[in-house]
Amino acid sequence: MAEKWYEEHNADDVYFKIKIKEHLHSEKTPFQEVNFYDSETFGRFFTLDGYLMLTEYDEFGYHNMITHPAFAVHPKIETVLIIGGGDGGTAKEVLLYDTVKNVDMVEIDERVVRLCQKYIPNIASALDNDERLNLFFEDGVKFVADKEDNTYDLILVDSTDPIGPGEGLFTSEFYKNCHRILKEDGIMINQHESPFYPKDRHAMIRAHKRIRDTFKIANVYQFHAATYPSGMWLFGFASKKYCPINNFDPERWHKFNLRPKYYNTHIHLASFAMPTYVSDILNNIEK
Amino acid sequence: MAEKWYEEHNADDVYFKIKIKEHLHSEKTPFQEVNFYDSETFGRFFTLDGYLMLTEYDEFGYHNMITHPAFAVHPKIETVLIIGGGDGGTAKEVLLYDTVKNVDMVEIDERVVRLCQKYIPNIASALDNDERLNLFFEDGVKFVADKEDNTYDLILVDSTDPIGPGEGLFTSEFYKNCHRILKEDGIMINQHESPFYPKDRHAMIRAHKRIRDTFKIANVYQFHAATYPSGMWLFGFASKKYCPINNFDPERWHKFNLRPKYYNTHIHLASFAMPTYVSDILNNIEK
Repeated sequence: MAEKWYEEHNADDVYFKIKIKEHLHSEKTPFQEVNFYDSETFGRFFTLDGYLMLTEYDEFGYHNMITHPAFAVHPKIETVLIIGGGDGGTAKEVLLYDTVKNVDMVEIDERVVRLCQKYIPNIASALDNDERLNLFFEDGVKFVADKEDNTYDLILVDSTDPIGPGEGLFTSEFYKNCHRILKEDGIMINQHESPFYPKDRHAMIRAHKRIRDTFKIANVYQFHAATYPSGMWLFGFASKKYCPINNFDPERWHKFNLRPKYYNTHIHLASFAMPTYVSDILNNIEK
Repeated sequence: MAEKWYEEHNADDVYFKIKIKEHLHSEKTPFQEVNFYDSETFGRFFTLDGYLMLTEYDEFGYHNMITHPAFAVHPKIETVLIIGGGDGGTAKEVLLYDTVKNVDMVEIDERVVRLCQKYIPNIASALDNDERLNLFFEDGVKFVADKEDNTYDLILVDSTDPIGPGEGLFTSEFYKNCHRILKEDGIMINQHESPFYPKDRHAMIRAHKRIRDTFKIANVYQFHAATYPSGMWLFGFASKKYCPINNFDPERWHKFNLRPKYYNTHIHLASFAMPTYVSDILNNIEK
């Protein structure tokens, strides 16, 4: 049998390839094309519209870093909104915290959740049966527009790239609604693209400008994601009140007694430091 | 004409591909096969025995990070030894410092230097005419074995992977000689592989064990290298006296008035923080 490879374009002339051991599933949902694969090095992985979302081997970096920093800054997170995150990896980390009383998770595509529960249960089983979790299969843009003010301590925007169903999650209107439905000391974390390849950099710049125009405090932080283009990826940390450095409380966080595989309190501070060329890009975005 | 691609194996089933605009040169030297290419996204790049060494677009990360951290720790670096580094990128950064009086650079393969001077002059022209720089086309292993004690303030081991001509630069004997020819407060920085893919992780563990057995202080620090496997790469910081954190002096470094494209004093501290799974690997290496 001929070898099969999954190829992702980082740029028109730069590809990343993983050899496919087994193509487990392919499906066109009303929103996107979903494919599940198995591989030797990365275990199982899945793609949306051809873009790699996660692999079993290295998803912990992304899901650790979208979740834990906010919990080490905000003194008591009880109500959480997850937008996207159909694979369950973000919910899994959030539900580790016993302070959390309610998680609303809004995923536009129910099929992603059901397929992840079937093909990557180690990750997605977090969505199976925790009483604190409410699943909504709706458009996140509409969900935040309809929600009353002052509802959440934390919003995690676990989106795809700003194309296809993820596009609305990068608009000023969406960020303004997130700001409105957060409590006065609420935090928003968002998938913030990357500074390295031009396409990703363009999306990073646009997102940063819009978030900075909406929130009093708007930082970015980095983490290592081997299966994302270039290996360096960002999250945004936006808040009405808390600074991710000055209000960081490592001792309080240690009391949760968690030991994530990627995140720790040294990495927390480190992740907000940017190479000079990245700070320059972000600082030079016009007001 | 059929498209041509450069492919690097990150693992047996994981490849990274760059489309070749032009294959500029191919040559078998007495030591290795050298190829120079041109590409759209990365500009010119070259490989040794099929492994990508640098690209014009992103070499600054590697060369900033192998050089600047030591200069922000040691109070006055005057004498420097570079092992390898035939492309000139490391020498270029070192020679930015006016405290530096003498740089010995030992590259086993003169052809690498001559070809880099021809094909990537923006980087390698640093090797053309600085009176402080002495080029030796010799085996670095032998050079350090023959050198008298107590000679250098800083040794930069800018090596290839531990196969082919780079192999001797990962041995205990080599590290012991580096230790011996460093002054009492000398620092050794070495290309330290990566924790992510098994092959690289194996080399990282072996190097760390040997360096830790040789030097009183042995740390690792990370940087982003998009064209290296996984995008996360390490350097080792080894010293007889200075701790890269406690003896870090950002104010003194700022007086050099340099503004590297990647390195800054926030990145300095940040780069020594490791994801938990990496610290676990390093801490669990048997004594």
